[in-house]
Amino acid sequence: MKIRALQSSDYEIINPLVDEWWGGRKMSHLLPKLLFNHFNQTSFIVEQDNEIIGFLIGFLSQTFSDKAYIHFVGVHPEYRKCNVGKQLYDCFFEIAIKNNRNTVHCLTSPVNKTSISFHQKMGFDIEEGGVEMEGVSVHTDYDGPDQHRVLFVKKL
Amino acid sequence: MKIRALQSSDYEIINPLVDEWWGGRKMSHLLPKLLFNHFNQTSFIVEQDNEIIGFLIGFLSQTFSDKAYIHFVGVHPEYRKCNVGKQLYDCFFEIAIKNNRNTVHCLTSPVNKTSISFHQKMGFDIEEGGVEMEGVSVHTDYDGPDQHRVLFVKKL
Repeated sequence: MKIRALQSSDYEIINPLVDEWWGGRKMSHLLPKLLFNHFNQTSFIVEQDNEIIGFLIGFLSQTFSDKAYIHFVGVHPEYRKCNVGKQLYDCFFEIAIKNNRNTVHCLTSPVNKTSISFHQKMGFDIEEGGVEMEGVSVHTDYDGPDQHRVLFVKKL
Repeated sequence: MKIRALQSSDYEIINPLVDEWWGGRKMSHLLPKLLFNHFNQTSFIVEQDNEIIGFLIGFLSQTFSDKAYIHFVGVHPEYRKCNVGKQLYDCFFEIAIKNNRNTVHCLTSPVNKTSISFHQKMGFDIEEGGVEMEGVSVHTDYDGPDQHRVLFVKKL
């Protein structure tokens, strides 16, 4: 496995892959091309045999000079147990620290139990929301009506 | 009219407004909450009588230290002839210059003739694409399949 920085041209490969990796669920609207143009140093690609098997899109907060944000992580379904996600997050933590960031933020849907447990294993804490759902604190309507989110923060 | 920096809490007001301002066309998915959290110094709100009548979401490119990017601009339909857009762009140009950026980039759909003409009036050039549509150079499939775009660049 090889990790490298994201390039603008990765968009054409990743865009059709994403909906496929999510079993047909429409996800590619979360990944506009602008993310592939303007956040390359904080976004990463994992390749195996010259094929993309994972990626992470993140950036440095421009509002808060001490925060970094992970927007989207995708891993090829056949490589879900191979630590691809962990490697991507570790790369991001490293570049965030190099840029003097002391916290990383990200979020997931309350239904995504695998993601919640992954983030907890990676050392993220859940940010207290207004409501508890199945034992997890949730920010209701965070990303619009009925778009509830679990918010994570990790100190670096 | 008053212009101020965007705040995270503006999301709750703007999210439902956007689809309304576009006559029911679904636009709010282009404005996830993260944009309201992490790009506040380069994003602006125009208010009239304490009501939001326009906004601009932009950021500094993190890949290219000399570029800035305007992602989304919305103006209340009843204020479309009142220079709200121009004021927002001028504010953005100013903050981009302060941050040592020498070009601003943005894009629109080829069908959006009003937007194309607005950008040309604001001093943007059209970036050469592979195809010409109705006299305008277009980047086909730029934001995914059938998502053609006209790309703009302005030197500051």
